[in-house]
Amino acid sequence: MKVSDYYNNVTTNFENEYSKNGFSGKDSELYLACKYIMDMKGKRIRPALVMMAAEMFGGSLIEALHPAMAVEVFHNSTLVHDDIMDAADMRRGQLTVHKIYGINTAINSGNVMMSYAYKYLLKSDNKYFRNLVGVFNRTAIEVMEGQSMDMNFETRLDVVEADYLKMIEYKTSVLLAASLQLGAIVADATESDQQHIYNFGKNLGLAFQLKDDYLDAFGDMQKVGKQKGGDIINNKKTLLLIKAIEFSDEIQKAEIIALLNEKNQHIKVERVLDFFEKSGSKKYTENKIDSFFGIAIKHLYACNVAHYKKEHLNKFAEDLHYRQF
Amino acid sequence: MKVSDYYNNVTTNFENEYSKNGFSGKDSELYLACKYIMDMKGKRIRPALVMMAAEMFGGSLIEALHPAMAVEVFHNSTLVHDDIMDAADMRRGQLTVHKIYGINTAINSGNVMMSYAYKYLLKSDNKYFRNLVGVFNRTAIEVMEGQSMDMNFETRLDVVEADYLKMIEYKTSVLLAASLQLGAIVADATESDQQHIYNFGKNLGLAFQLKDDYLDAFGDMQKVGKQKGGDIINNKKTLLLIKAIEFSDEIQKAEIIALLNEKNQHIKVERVLDFFEKSGSKKYTENKIDSFFGIAIKHLYACNVAHYKKEHLNKFAEDLHYRQF
Repeated sequence: MKVSDYYNNVTTNFENEYSKNGFSGKDSELYLACKYIMDMKGKRIRPALVMMAAEMFGGSLIEALHPAMAVEVFHNSTLVHDDIMDAADMRRGQLTVHKIYGINTAINSGNVMMSYAYKYLLKSDNKYFRNLVGVFNRTAIEVMEGQSMDMNFETRLDVVEADYLKMIEYKTSVLLAASLQLGAIVADATESDQQHIYNFGKNLGLAFQLKDDYLDAFGDMQKVGKQKGGDIINNKKTLLLIKAIEFSDEIQKAEIIALLNEKNQHIKVERVLDFFEKSGSKKYTENKIDSFFGIAIKHLYACNVAHYKKEHLNKFAEDLHYRQF
Repeated sequence: MKVSDYYNNVTTNFENEYSKNGFSGKDSELYLACKYIMDMKGKRIRPALVMMAAEMFGGSLIEALHPAMAVEVFHNSTLVHDDIMDAADMRRGQLTVHKIYGINTAINSGNVMMSYAYKYLLKSDNKYFRNLVGVFNRTAIEVMEGQSMDMNFETRLDVVEADYLKMIEYKTSVLLAASLQLGAIVADATESDQQHIYNFGKNLGLAFQLKDDYLDAFGDMQKVGKQKGGDIINNKKTLLLIKAIEFSDEIQKAEIIALLNEKNQHIKVERVLDFFEKSGSKKYTENKIDSFFGIAIKHLYACNVAHYKKEHLNKFAEDLHYRQF
């Protein structure tokens, strides 16, 4: 993703707010762990989306900072808990929270960050408060349901496309979508515009996650320092795998399923990639990504706002869509 | 605690609401785990306090059911996470959630119950909503800070009375206090009455927790099927132990500290109990319990409501205070 000056400007606003109203000055282990994950920073996509949507609909960036803080601490709370559940040692090149502070503090810190999300929403103007909490809270529940589906898929053998799409919608897309809607709410956008910007984010999120899976298999992974085919090695039930199996005859299916137990990682990755290509699941996934991206853009253009105001979000979406790694 | 008909009636209202708007009909593992812990029931003290306070201040029980649901699912979410942190296998004579569903589902179920608390608050009348979320959310943060203090005490040797009281205030008392305040809010109680009923709950909670510690050492534990002196065996830094050490001379201190490593549990419990008695920490703790109970009752009586309306909460407090196990 190319980062524009505009995007940098938006996230700088967020960092300033965070440095004032985050966890600094709180020196118990509980909050040191919160600070640690928040200071890994990442791309701050969700708060940026809140603020970009607020600006597009002519709202105040000051008012947008409260839901922006809420979505970012909530997102980080899920990262802390997900890393425990995945037994992950590393995140963004650093040790995970539970590796440094222990599982107990990591659980508790994730919890307190969740409560801080509502603490930030409580700073909002009364006009928006209930609506913000409603959208945010419904989304938080969906994210947890998505995480639960993702865990269940590990032991299930009957995951179909609809299951997978529901899982990534809940685990990833709805929070991107809600971030945009929260920004629209504090900008007094109409109910119809709120729905369009939400659906822009939801479909963009689906395209984004499918592209992420796609690049894990076919991307230029050395550029980001990741192992090519990590999902294949871990037998992750991505759309690529689900469709490769679905599009195969019985003999090919048996071959793929045998490959899941192949110990030589290089051979495994190469042969599975070959199946993705031959079965048509690669092409199918490419089309699916384009399709979600297309729906996303249609919703952006359906928002009742002068087109030039949509430029930043349009550019942001394109950067996500056309990235090669 | 003796359970009156009135109390039974209040909690029956709660159970009816829970059976309608709890987790029934949701059959994913995520929600089965939520149902499992909620179905252990316990005494439903927190929702009962919400409803008793609402009734005392002349409010509607229907409106009180929303914060009542919120505090009970939140309380249960903390039990699920605390049991993971304490590596506890059993609760109320049954296997803990993580022993049945695994740690990952237990973390995730605790999280979703936390979000359900806000979902229940979102059903409240707009007149109360922001105030309810503000009190509830501040309390949730304090509960997590209390849990964090409790964990840190395990490895700290310098815990003093003020630390211990702060820990039990946050971990236990503030949620009892907030439950009462939430009930007062939906009954349109004045700010002053809200503070009095909050402080009634806070001081009652402190007395309750200290009495709990006291009964663990001196109570008739076989009546509740618990081991006498469990806290002593686990070297828990209760007020009894903190004060016994504080009131001792250097020689006695060395004896107590040596006892912490005593392997024979029976000898350990008997000798530590003897120290509690001789050092004056038993008497000190008894006085402290009476003192907090006295402050609690003063706050109840300071509420600007006809005295006869305070009968149920007064009786409830006395039952807690005079219990022998």
